Amino acid sequence: MPKSYFPNVKEIKYEGPTSKKPLAFKHYNANEKVLGKTMRDHFRFAACYWHCMKGAGGDPFGPGTRIMPWNDAPDEMTAAEQTMHAHFEFMTKLGVGFWCFHDRDISPEAGSLAETNKRLDHIVKLAGKMQRDTGIKLLWGTANLFSHPRYMSGAGTSVSAKVFAHAAAQVKKALEVTKELKGSGYVFWGGREGYDSLLNTDMGRELDHLALLLHMAVDYKKKIGFRGQFFIEPKPKEPTKHQYDFDAAACHAFLMKYDLVKDFMLNIETNHATLAGHSMHHELEYAVGNNLLGSIDANRGDTLIGWDTDQFPTDLYDCVMVCCSLLKAGGFKAGGLNFDAKVRRQSIDPVDLFYAHIGGMDTFARALKIAAKIQMDGRIAKLTGERYAGWSTPLGRDIEKGKMNLAKLEAIALKNNVDRAPSGRQELFENVLNELI
Amino acid sequence: MPKSYFPNVKEIKYEGPTSKKPLAFKHYNANEKVLGKTMRDHFRFAACYWHCMKGAGGDPFGPGTRIMPWNDAPDEMTAAEQTMHAHFEFMTKLGVGFWCFHDRDISPEAGSLAETNKRLDHIVKLAGKMQRDTGIKLLWGTANLFSHPRYMSGAGTSVSAKVFAHAAAQVKKALEVTKELKGSGYVFWGGREGYDSLLNTDMGRELDHLALLLHMAVDYKKKIGFRGQFFIEPKPKEPTKHQYDFDAAACHAFLMKYDLVKDFMLNIETNHATLAGHSMHHELEYAVGNNLLGSIDANRGDTLIGWDTDQFPTDLYDCVMVCCSLLKAGGFKAGGLNFDAKVRRQSIDPVDLFYAHIGGMDTFARALKIAAKIQMDGRIAKLTGERYAGWSTPLGRDIEKGKMNLAKLEAIALKNNVDRAPSGRQELFENVLNELI
Amino acid sequence: MPKSYFPNVKEIKYEGPTSKKPLAFKHYNANEKVLGKTMRDHFRFAACYWHCMKGAGGDPFGPGTRIMPWNDAPDEMTAAEQTMHAHFEFMTKLGVGFWCFHDRDISPEAGSLAETNKRLDHIVKLAGKMQRDTGIKLLWGTANLFSHPRYMSGAGTSVSAKVFAHAAAQVKKALEVTKELKGSGYVFWGGREGYDSLLNTDMGRELDHLALLLHMAVDYKKKIGFRGQFFIEPKPKEPTKHQYDFDAAACHAFLMKYDLVKDFMLNIETNHATLAGHSMHHELEYAVGNNLLGSIDANRGDTLIGWDTDQFPTDLYDCVMVCCSLLKAGGFKAGGLNFDAKVRRQSIDPVDLFYAHIGGMDTFARALKIAAKIQMDGRIAKLTGERYAGWSTPLGRDIEKGKMNLAKLEAIALKNNVDRAPSGRQELFENVLNELI
Amino acid sequence: MPKSYFPNVKEIKYEGPTSKKPLAFKHYNANEKVLGKTMRDHFRFAACYWHCMKGAGGDPFGPGTRIMPWNDAPDEMTAAEQTMHAHFEFMTKLGVGFWCFHDRDISPEAGSLAETNKRLDHIVKLAGKMQRDTGIKLLWGTANLFSHPRYMSGAGTSVSAKVFAHAAAQVKKALEVTKELKGSGYVFWGGREGYDSLLNTDMGRELDHLALLLHMAVDYKKKIGFRGQFFIEPKPKEPTKHQYDFDAAACHAFLMKYDLVKDFMLNIETNHATLAGHSMHHELEYAVGNNLLGSIDANRGDTLIGWDTDQFPTDLYDCVMVCCSLLKAGGFKAGGLNFDAKVRRQSIDPVDLFYAHIGGMDTFARALKIAAKIQMDGRIAKLTGERYAGWSTPLGRDIEKGKMNLAKLEAIALKNNVDRAPSGRQELFENVLNELI
Repeated sequence: MPKSYFPNVKEIKYEGPTSKKPLAFKHYNANEKVLGKTMRDHFRFAACYWHCMKGAGGDPFGPGTRIMPWNDAPDEMTAAEQTMHAHFEFMTKLGVGFWCFHDRDISPEAGSLAETNKRLDHIVKLAGKMQRDTGIKLLWGTANLFSHPRYMSGAGTSVSAKVFAHAAAQVKKALEVTKELKGSGYVFWGGREGYDSLLNTDMGRELDHLALLLHMAVDYKKKIGFRGQFFIEPKPKEPTKHQYDFDAAACHAFLMKYDLVKDFMLNIETNHATLAGHSMHHELEYAVGNNLLGSIDANRGDTLIGWDTDQFPTDLYDCVMVCCSLLKAGGFKAGGLNFDAKVRRQSIDPVDLFYAHIGGMDTFARALKIAAKIQMDGRIAKLTGERYAGWSTPLGRDIEKGKMNLAKLEAIALKNNVDRAPSGRQELFENVLNELI
Repeated sequence: MPKSYFPNVKEIKYEGPTSKKPLAFKHYNANEKVLGKTMRDHFRFAACYWHCMKGAGGDPFGPGTRIMPWNDAPDEMTAAEQTMHAHFEFMTKLGVGFWCFHDRDISPEAGSLAETNKRLDHIVKLAGKMQRDTGIKLLWGTANLFSHPRYMSGAGTSVSAKVFAHAAAQVKKALEVTKELKGSGYVFWGGREGYDSLLNTDMGRELDHLALLLHMAVDYKKKIGFRGQFFIEPKPKEPTKHQYDFDAAACHAFLMKYDLVKDFMLNIETNHATLAGHSMHHELEYAVGNNLLGSIDANRGDTLIGWDTDQFPTDLYDCVMVCCSLLKAGGFKAGGLNFDAKVRRQSIDPVDLFYAHIGGMDTFARALKIAAKIQMDGRIAKLTGERYAGWSTPLGRDIEKGKMNLAKLEAIALKNNVDRAPSGRQELFENVLNELI
Repeated sequence: MPKSYFPNVKEIKYEGPTSKKPLAFKHYNANEKVLGKTMRDHFRFAACYWHCMKGAGGDPFGPGTRIMPWNDAPDEMTAAEQTMHAHFEFMTKLGVGFWCFHDRDISPEAGSLAETNKRLDHIVKLAGKMQRDTGIKLLWGTANLFSHPRYMSGAGTSVSAKVFAHAAAQVKKALEVTKELKGSGYVFWGGREGYDSLLNTDMGRELDHLALLLHMAVDYKKKIGFRGQFFIEPKPKEPTKHQYDFDAAACHAFLMKYDLVKDFMLNIETNHATLAGHSMHHELEYAVGNNLLGSIDANRGDTLIGWDTDQFPTDLYDCVMVCCSLLKAGGFKAGGLNFDAKVRRQSIDPVDLFYAHIGGMDTFARALKIAAKIQMDGRIAKLTGERYAGWSTPLGRDIEKGKMNLAKLEAIALKNNVDRAPSGRQELFENVLNELI
Repeated sequence: MPKSYFPNVKEIKYEGPTSKKPLAFKHYNANEKVLGKTMRDHFRFAACYWHCMKGAGGDPFGPGTRIMPWNDAPDEMTAAEQTMHAHFEFMTKLGVGFWCFHDRDISPEAGSLAETNKRLDHIVKLAGKMQRDTGIKLLWGTANLFSHPRYMSGAGTSVSAKVFAHAAAQVKKALEVTKELKGSGYVFWGGREGYDSLLNTDMGRELDHLALLLHMAVDYKKKIGFRGQFFIEPKPKEPTKHQYDFDAAACHAFLMKYDLVKDFMLNIETNHATLAGHSMHHELEYAVGNNLLGSIDANRGDTLIGWDTDQFPTDLYDCVMVCCSLLKAGGFKAGGLNFDAKVRRQSIDPVDLFYAHIGGMDTFARALKIAAKIQMDGRIAKLTGERYAGWSTPLGRDIEKGKMNLAKLEAIALKNNVDRAPSGRQELFENVLNELI
């Protein structure tokens, strides 16, 4: 029987809203159906390897603080194996059905790419076994193309063609292992695809290169028969001053320009949305409106501070809006809700990982029930319909059908002087929302 | 002889950098050639009607403060005529070759659209005469679709189809008068095309409507044979919480999605760029890289405050970057450099308008000479070339030509372990820039 | 019987959480006791005259939109009387016990100060009568020293000594009428006490002037026997680039430096807190910790946009934190909770004022019950106590009593190497908070 | 002869503005006098140990990238010695007269405090020798109370009294070694003195503890006869969500409240100023106006991004304002201008350290000459004087002398209706500034 890394934590159970037990769900009840679908299937919750297992709590002013028993090993490959065990123990006890990883999270880089790949194969084999043993699935895999010094100037957008080649090789291998682990998708997050200064940067050329890399990935995906969904993850800045995948709209423009829009969807992250000056709800609605909503990296930022804090999502308002957009989109297909969130630097005990995820899952469960209630209640839809009522008149319908032109509309405007649109009623909408929360 | 509104100001002359006269140019010398083209032709400077003549200095906490002798009139149409005289006197004395306006700036709205249009025709006739008398040309016209209460919920994106019709009628008329005044372009700034709350908004439907309006405008432009360039002006927020034309990339995505990209270019504004979290340089480079740089609304914001301050551009660094991008784009065709800038609320004397524009024009003149110097000096280009040297190797060329795929690149990466890209040398780039300033 | 301005609105009643009636309270039950005190007495809710009655919805891009029947009058003094009637009708129907005003809100400025004061006296008499008729009280009065063009460069900090004198005269009169109306307090908000540019500003001299004005006000208060509390209201910027009363700490420093700290408390406003980069909770805790919490201007901002949006407070999390700080401070004495909030520009109907205030009052009522629950539950206090447990050891107590010095502490540190503090448990705290919401 | 770590760099010489040599000063000429004082004495430039020698370029998304030959050593104490040699070689070649350090920069922590202190003594001895050999002096020392995991919840404000004791011991030792090295000052930067969440924090108690620590340091300073100046360094956030020493005003309030204002001055940092929403110029003017300007940590931030980028200062406008404030304050006494700035992560070569510092020193040298020119030119002072002219009238003087009260001022205001202050002329001020740059 393998060593336990969370010996004092038992499987987290649903105990309902009256429970005061810290290690219990008050709202997330995996098999409970909401609008005809279980919570489990609505959310497809994933726990990410990097923050849960690898994040030690370091920040620009100090190293890691975390107590991580899985790192206690004679060598780094043994530690890698232990970490995989720990992550599956964690997920099993927590009750999430999916995980996500970067290649270098699960297996450390060696002196050569060949040796690195060999190590990766070894760990992937272990991961496959643990997937089979636990029933936990891979939501998505990805390649870390931003941590190693070689990627300091980008990967697909590096100033160096050799670095581009290395990135391509890493993507190839990551696609292969994601396929091997039956990943539901694959994410491209352009960690260093951007610039620190425009003075020394050829932006146009770099974007052309990035598109080339993505096209190669699309081709290779087809070649090896990997059927997972490709996702691009928008982020406006950090670590670079300006990331090319700034927000959903910038990604959309890029994908259209380079004829990639049919091959990609978006993986939208809350804190990235707010760093770009958008609400998460905006980014999701943009994605939904353009059939681009693929997956969600759930967390929360602090809009009073300007870096990616990746806190656990506990704000009910934000999570309700996420669930409304998700329901509107018809739910996840290949994607899911991955907690790209980390416990605070001061939360140093392994049990804090459980508190954090329980808080996030409970908040989303509660939010889903509220979103369903909003749908059933119907008042917000009705009030919205009333605002746009004018578009259901013959005039509105003719405009929408393309039957009008400026001259015809001028003739109408000359006849009726319109002074005002109906009240926006924003405060009433907000009250109704609060009533349902 | 008409009344003078600036009796104590004579024509502003170029006196060179040693002059200490407040009402003289120290750097802007209209006929001086820089890289083979006169400064006048490089910049195509325009003075905007709204801030110069109509802006009284009001803000959310108090009404206007400005002394505006052109408003001293028995009725509003006489005031409108006087204001047109004042603007052309101002521009003639300042020495700018272009102006810009919204329909409602130059002629006030009346009780019905028919009467409003009649008033507009009257003033446009006067404007045409003054253009002929002075040689000053119209850079672009536009319709004000955001001030009147009817547009409180948008114009093309209004919840009301009647308001949409009114907006369409106003665009039609504004296109006609812009054509009549031989405008070089026409700008769409979606002042209220956005939302205050997503709760009460159908974003997808609103965007569809906006695209319909723009297509109607394209059709009408062709119909009447107006040959000016259409511009869209990005802005992220204010007055709305979220404007649909958030930034250059969002406009680009919109134009591509709705098949409008061939009919529009962008009118980029400095303060809008920074409100969106971008440098002006970034927005211009994005536009240049996508053949979308049409025109510039020059001003400057204050990145420590979160609203559109529309200050006059006096920061040499920012203006140098603007000139570098402009030279890279091959200069303005239909567009120009419009000072969408206003004097501060405390700058209440008419002469302050001159100080402000002189400051802006001198800064840009100096910036242009520096941008030319950067080009001639060649060090920045050379240092940039050195960074990307790897892309001129056979490997780099093969990737760029599309001859590579993931498997071939992996084979290369397996052979060479690349550890680092060359130093980015950002500090050296910045020093060289400072040497040239 | 006087004309009604809200003929379709009856007195707002408490109907409990299951009511779906838009014009009813679901949580605010004035006479219900929470922790031994009625909700009415906890909150001392006030409706402000400026936003409710005078705010028409104008913004920098368009004039007002609001339908305001009280403005329909043959002359401005009749309108002023009608407006006073409307405000008391509004407050009576809404059920708030207090109001707040600026001198110029209730009575418009005339051609001379003498005439202006006469007008003000007339309206104050009417206000006094309405207070007696309705039982509604004045929470605080103030002078508008920021709207008139004469104050464009500040009032107490104006570049003009004459403007300073005018401001002083206005403060004197405002103190007199606030006394006459038995105001519980008087607020100083330095609307234009700050600068647009440091280049043309003598900051030190301006601050000395401001302190002189406040000292004169303290003296005059004593002279006339006004017993209300003086409040300073922090705000970091807008309309100026930089307001001197930036935040609670800056006000505190100013008051200490100029020996005014005993005469003033703070009136903390939510949106001003966030514009300064602080949470409202932070500003309140700072004030509580320094015995400076006097009154609250309740609203909410939008941290993704950079200007004062003054939205109605509907975020439960924020309001719970406000209530926690308020309970910690022992509740309001002279102050109260004034809704310094305005309906959105698109909310044009008089009834929207009711929706907005109902939303705010219900949110705070719910928040108060939650804050009381947090107190009764005790888990958060207990967890906090556990974090600081080390300060209850002999070592901790000795340090706090001032018995230690660096040398003694070094001796202790040399003996024990301390490696880590206990886990901060932030996620658990957040979960407990969510359980109680 | 010791090994050289910058073998290809010779002593940096002043070559004047026409030089195109990257490794030469174009403006900084140490012995050149400006307003009667050498540049060397104006600036008292310091190179900081942490960014120059210890900063490897790591960020939250990747480890260090830098090539640092001084780290190539068999053990960490040898590396520490080599690093000290490298720093003095660097400073000697660069020509700066001062350095700054944290205790743990120069000597790594060992298993016990006793052993750590022994190591520190060893390195301090070496540093003292190198100071004597080179003539380079210590501007200030400090203790690193933020990197080690024990300080994760603060040092003086830790939840743990034991951690407080450890911090006290570290301060004691750092004071001793700073005295030994004849440091001109000692800096307190409260890296983790703040909070991540108010939910789990007792802010009042933590601030009391911090004040206790500072009082102990003041006492110990007197006891050992250390005559250097104490500085507090404001920073608003990062790494914590909220630092207690938010900005100059917050520090001022803290120092006044705890009776520490006579014992401390401020060390103002550019990037910290902008993170707090202030311009550097504002923070300096606040400090100058309260006799608190002690020292400067020169760098520059990026106001479009929300974290501390610590870039080298190259913006002429910002540096001119710094020099204006510095001249106004009468120059540095104990303080100096320390480059708390780091080369970008992509700037990996040792020579980049030289480029960076040369750029900063040249920019400041140029800025100083401009500031002197502004003073000699006198136009800005004259224009400012004209704005405040009204304060030199009898009315103005009487107010300033405290001879007026509200009643007397009302009498004056009743006689004269003042409508407007004079034009602020901000644009003209900006033009004059640009003429002098």
